[in-house]
Amino acid sequence: MAFSEFHPLDGNSLREYIKTVPSLSSKLGNNFDDLTIKEVGDGNLNFVYIIVSSAGSLVIKQALPYIRCIGESWPMTKERAYFEAMTLKEHGRLSPEHVPEVYHFDRTMSLIAMRYLEPPHIILRKGLIAEIEYPFLAEHIADYMAKTLFFTSLLFRSTTEHKRDVAEFCGNVELCRLTEQVVFSDPYKVSQYNRWTAPYLDRDAEAVREDNLLKLEIAELKSKFIERAQALIHGDLHTGSVMVTRESTQVIDPEFAFYGPMGFDVGAFLGNLILAFFAQDGHANEVNDRKTYKEWILKTIEETWNLFHYKFIALWDEHRNGSGEAYLPEIYNNPEVQLLVQKKYMTDLFHDTLGFGAAKMIRRIVGVAHVEDFESIADASKRATCERRALDLAKTLLKERRKFGGITEVIAAIQQV
Amino acid sequence: MAFSEFHPLDGNSLREYIKTVPSLSSKLGNNFDDLTIKEVGDGNLNFVYIIVSSAGSLVIKQALPYIRCIGESWPMTKERAYFEAMTLKEHGRLSPEHVPEVYHFDRTMSLIAMRYLEPPHIILRKGLIAEIEYPFLAEHIADYMAKTLFFTSLLFRSTTEHKRDVAEFCGNVELCRLTEQVVFSDPYKVSQYNRWTAPYLDRDAEAVREDNLLKLEIAELKSKFIERAQALIHGDLHTGSVMVTRESTQVIDPEFAFYGPMGFDVGAFLGNLILAFFAQDGHANEVNDRKTYKEWILKTIEETWNLFHYKFIALWDEHRNGSGEAYLPEIYNNPEVQLLVQKKYMTDLFHDTLGFGAAKMIRRIVGVAHVEDFESIADASKRATCERRALDLAKTLLKERRKFGGITEVIAAIQQV
Ligand SMILES: Nc1ncnc2c1ncn2[C@@H]1O[C@H](COP(=O)(O)OP(=O)(O)O)[C@@H](O)[C@H]1O
Ligand SMILES: Nc1ncnc2c1ncn2[C@@H]1O[C@H](COP(=O)(O)OP(=O)(O)O)[C@@H](O)[C@H]1O
Ligand SMILES: [Mg+2]
Ligand SMILES: [Mg+2]
Ligand SMILES: [Mg+2]
Ligand SMILES: [Mg+2]
Ligand SMILES: [Mg+2]
Repeated sequence: MAFSEFHPLDGNSLREYIKTVPSLSSKLGNNFDDLTIKEVGDGNLNFVYIIVSSAGSLVIKQALPYIRCIGESWPMTKERAYFEAMTLKEHGRLSPEHVPEVYHFDRTMSLIAMRYLEPPHIILRKGLIAEIEYPFLAEHIADYMAKTLFFTSLLFRSTTEHKRDVAEFCGNVELCRLTEQVVFSDPYKVSQYNRWTAPYLDRDAEAVREDNLLKLEIAELKSKFIERAQALIHGDLHTGSVMVTRESTQVIDPEFAFYGPMGFDVGAFLGNLILAFFAQDGHANEVNDRKTYKEWILKTIEETWNLFHYKFIALWDEHRNGSGEAYLPEIYNNPEVQLLVQKKYMTDLFHDTLGFGAAKMIRRIVGVAHVEDFESIADASKRATCERRALDLAKTLLKERRKFGGITEVIAAIQQV
Repeated sequence: MAFSEFHPLDGNSLREYIKTVPSLSSKLGNNFDDLTIKEVGDGNLNFVYIIVSSAGSLVIKQALPYIRCIGESWPMTKERAYFEAMTLKEHGRLSPEHVPEVYHFDRTMSLIAMRYLEPPHIILRKGLIAEIEYPFLAEHIADYMAKTLFFTSLLFRSTTEHKRDVAEFCGNVELCRLTEQVVFSDPYKVSQYNRWTAPYLDRDAEAVREDNLLKLEIAELKSKFIERAQALIHGDLHTGSVMVTRESTQVIDPEFAFYGPMGFDVGAFLGNLILAFFAQDGHANEVNDRKTYKEWILKTIEETWNLFHYKFIALWDEHRNGSGEAYLPEIYNNPEVQLLVQKKYMTDLFHDTLGFGAAKMIRRIVGVAHVEDFESIADASKRATCERRALDLAKTLLKERRKFGGITEVIAAIQQV
């Protein structure tokens, strides 16, 4: 079989494909007799194969020209694999400890081969449902976000590098449009794709569609999402895009990457932790109230922001005499002004984070794609109660985000719901 | 002579060039005997030739790979002519009454042929120095800005069209960088290029370089200038980029065009009118106090903003059910929310306008490129007094812009200096 044009692969053709690519064959010790190939794509969009031989392993991810969980009726460019591969490589260069190595990319086949994140790695969202504490999670994700966002922003780069890459990632417009629709539009209007825990949340969903102030705020965020090329963001950094063990934290699936607002990434991660928090009561029972675990989630939210802030500022201080265009050292040349600009930058980023995080929470409750945190609560009435709390907090965060002075105030607001 | 590769042209080779281009020859009635060719580039960057025959006329503008007023020591891509031609065509399509028609573009030669804006057209800045009132100026410029900015924004266009064009104009990065340097950086630091009316303004220039709050605000505007792809802006819309007669208003010279913040164009225009206002006292004498003319400039500033606001909102209302991505009609579906979002959008744009306008004023007083409005005041002490007033107002506008509730408050502030 020739792979000079696009084919959707299956187990058999995948085996043939690997044989034609020396770097992949050698990863498996050129041993094809005991090969096992398993499709594990539990995600929404693509096909993911785990390939293991006695001598090695790898993962192959292929994009088909439609959205997997909906089917061929919702076409989606397979060029997304190109942007995913580019971003895995770039973010991997900046944060190698937290991004799986890319072994091979084939643009024609929309195919990425990468390191297999072997067991006990699991998807973080599943770990959060299973009440597992990850002592290094906040530290690791903060590190990943600080490095990938700082080094791809104008705090580190020249305008020339910036505009070159912004232009390239404008090509990922179809994926950006998907976000625009499902995050910033559909939840705020009647849409065939929206769903929620009916009938319990019927009024809540309607209230979202009738809240003028919410619509005012989501419009600002939507425009910022489209217009503001602040850094190369992951674009889909929820807890289903992170694989973890106790010691390891790995970010996968950056197919939505483009130059957008940093707060969209930080908010996605924190917003999904808040969802995990509100889901805990739905998983609690008489023998386990999950109180301790809820405390751990809150602590992780707080530490993630604080460590991100700390690391981001440390990178800024370290590189303040570099070639970043935004704050030239000859201008920002005294400690007071340096403090002033950093404080303003981080405050704005914090408010963006709350706004985008809230938007991501809302869409997971009344939009098309829900989260397993809530979906796995079988009792619909109980689930609706958890979801409503999350929704109410998210609405407050979105509308009042500029009033929050720091992450401890957010934690307090979560506890007060 | 062959024109298959780039040559800087002169009168003779220009004549040869026109002969090889049928569309240009025919504009001149194919009559080369009585041709007059005059170089008139009084601008800073390029060469401009007026070509007149008994049967017709045209203007030819050529970009050389450096900045004309500095010389070959400051290289600058001649590809700027490509972006200028693209923008003349796009803005001309959107606002044909106020943009000269492009007859011909030659990318290899970095050459644009366009309509000759025949006398009595003069550069607006010269008209403002000569105390000439232009009764339609506010209306015309408001119309040009409303149409070019609205129709190239997400209020009218889909994300797909937007990102395609954003990517293309990322190519104009060298011109963007020039603005970044001379508008947003050099005035706030010691730079070999800066100059001012010394010794009178020595302390004022130093104060700009030592004002932490000013530096905080200019940083926000600089990042917005680089990061925010709001619309296809002209990028250099000062009063030297507008040619006028009593009845006609024509915008030329969009070589700095790219997808940037709308307020940069509106602010450039208004900021330069404010400079013209403060220069009037320097042109006044015993027989002519220029009081009436100053009133006319203030009225023009006020009307330009008010008419721009009115026309922009009218376009928005007219196209609110179109394919603009920013405010989908199914979401912004009641008069109250429509009012809310428009009010917020225009308030933000107003504050951007004041900020960018102020930045453009400051750089004309303590930066590299000054304006004839002030330069033509021979008495240095008198000039410095005018400049200081403009500078003080600009600093207030930049730092306090969010406190201004409307254009009448700006007019009041101008009058109070
Ligand atoms: N490198 C990897 N190692 C191990 N498992 C992976 C790897 N990449 C993806 N997976 C598994 O495949 C699933 C889907 O992958 P993902 O990249 O999220 O695809 P999608 O874009 O369809 O969401 C993940 O949830 C995870 O279980
Ligand atoms: N279409 C035109 N018709 C008449 N004069 C023009 C035209 N275009 C430019 N000019 C004259 O040439 C000068 C320089 O043109 P401009 O486009 O501003 O060049 P630069 O980019 O060098 O500033 C203008 O100030 C004006 O006097
Ligand atoms: Mg995924
Ligand atoms: Mg997915
Ligand atoms: Mg994905
Ligand atoms: Mg000019
Ligand atoms: Mg010019």
